Amino acid sequence: MRFVFEVVVTLKPGLSDPQGKAVEGALPALGWSNVRDVHVGKHIRLTIDAEDEAAARLQVDEMATRLLSNPVIEGYRVLETDEV
Amino acid sequence: MRFVFEVVVTLKPGLSDPQGKAVEGALPALGWSNVRDVHVGKHIRLTIDAEDEAAARLQVDEMATRLLSNPVIEGYRVLETDEV
Repeated sequence: MRFVFEVVVTLKPGLSDPQGKAVEGALPALGWSNVRDVHVGKHIRLTIDAEDEAAARLQVDEMATRLLSNPVIEGYRVLETDEV
Repeated sequence: MRFVFEVVVTLKPGLSDPQGKAVEGALPALGWSNVRDVHVGKHIRLTIDAEDEAAARLQVDEMATRLLSNPVIEGYRVLETDEV
């Protein structure tokens, strides 16, 4: 069966986030001065062929740790998914 | 009131996605040959001070179109959010 997953990879709290700061810095010039705590991360969408959802989910966790994120500085979460 | 939003920015379907292809290319060497359709996008988390959720949501849509995404090649969606 095919399972579609979405993985969101974000910097751990407290780490410097230059991309987020860049967005924050651009906002006032566009008229938005009521925005803060901007953090930019990665979003990965992928399709896995697996026997069942538990196996697919296990594989996603392993891929997120070994390939999609850097566990030293980043965390990840898997968004709810629909089978296709 | 404060509202936290998460915006996911992804390439429109059919467009070349070199980051996704790079991830896809790295997977078999790590033992995963059952993964396809890998797409890499951006994830932005931000906090808005606004009168109510409708105003905040309207502003998020405008920021997503004008700053966070390139509407020519990218789409976006706003994830469910909690007030903090």
